[in-house]
Amino acid sequence: MYYPIFRQMRKTLAQIDTWFDKATDYAKSRSFDPNVLVGMRLAPDQFPLVRQVQIACDTVKLGASRLTGKEAPTHEDNEKTIDELRARIKSATRFLDGLTEKDFDNAATRAVTLPRWEGKIMTGHDYFLEHVVPNFFFHASHTYAILRHNGVPLGKSDYLGPLTQRKP
Amino acid sequence: MYYPIFRQMRKTLAQIDTWFDKATDYAKSRSFDPNVLVGMRLAPDQFPLVRQVQIACDTVKLGASRLTGKEAPTHEDNEKTIDELRARIKSATRFLDGLTEKDFDNAATRAVTLPRWEGKIMTGHDYFLEHVVPNFFFHASHTYAILRHNGVPLGKSDYLGPLTQRKP
Repeated sequence: MYYPIFRQMRKTLAQIDTWFDKATDYAKSRSFDPNVLVGMRLAPDQFPLVRQVQIACDTVKLGASRLTGKEAPTHEDNEKTIDELRARIKSATRFLDGLTEKDFDNAATRAVTLPRWEGKIMTGHDYFLEHVVPNFFFHASHTYAILRHNGVPLGKSDYLGPLTQRKP
Repeated sequence: MYYPIFRQMRKTLAQIDTWFDKATDYAKSRSFDPNVLVGMRLAPDQFPLVRQVQIACDTVKLGASRLTGKEAPTHEDNEKTIDELRARIKSATRFLDGLTEKDFDNAATRAVTLPRWEGKIMTGHDYFLEHVVPNFFFHASHTYAILRHNGVPLGKSDYLGPLTQRKP
C-alpha cells in the first residue's frame, strides 16, 4: 500500500495550494500582504509556515526517493513567498506523478539511513510507517493550523479534499 | 497494510499520553491547573484540545470497527480532565490491541457509510486512505500544536516516538 498512500499524501499536498488561495483572499479582505503568513508560527521555538511546507514536501519527496531508488529534485530552501511555496509543492507533486506502483516493489526491504542515525538503518517498511506517514501529516496539519490560527477561514473539507463517494 | 498502519496510529495515540506527562510537569512548574489545557484552542472557531483527542481516538476506533466489522467501545464525550482523556486513549488502544491482521482481510471492499453521506458509500480502501489516515494525524497533530502553542516543551521525537533502528 506504499503507492496508494503516497497518492493520498500527494492529494493532501495539492490541498495546501487551495489553502493558499483562501489565505490570499483573506489577506486581501483584511488589506495585508499574504506573504506575511509565510513567517508565522504557533510558538517562538517552532518552525514557521515556510518550513512546515518545505518539510511536508521533503518528507514525501525524500520518502518516495528512498523507497524507490529514484532521484528526487533538489531544493535550496530559500522560499520567501506563497508563490514560491506553490512552486515547491508543484515540484514535489510532479516528482510523485512520475512514479508508478511498480517502483515501490522492493520498498519494504530497502535499507534507509540518514547521517544523524550514526550508521544505523531502518527498513523501508519501518521508515515509511514510523517516519514518512506521521511526519508528513504532522507538517501538513501544522501548515493548516498556522493559517487557521491567523484567521484564514479553513474547514475540514479543505484539509481532506473531495472524498470518493459512490452509489451503493 | 491496514493493520500495520493501525498499529502506527495506535503508537501515535499512546504518544499523546507522554505529551500529557510533559504538560502536567509544565503546569506544575508554572503553578497552573493542567486541566486548563483541555479547553485551549488555536482559533475561537476551532475545536479545543479535548475534542481533538476525542476525534483522534474515534477516528481510529470507528475506522478499525468499520473496516473489520468488530464492535467498538462507546464513549459519552464528557471528558473534562487530562486523566479522563488518558482513559479515553486507553480504551481506544485496548480495542485496537484486540484486533489481528486477519480481521482486516476484507477491509478494502467493505462498504462504509455515514448518515451525513445521504445514502452514498465509500469503499473501505478509499475510506481508509482519504479519511481515516489523514483525519487521525490531523487531530493528533492539533493536540500536539495546542500544547506546544501553550508552552509545553514538546519536540518531534515526542510526536514520532521511538524509531525502529537496526545495525546494518
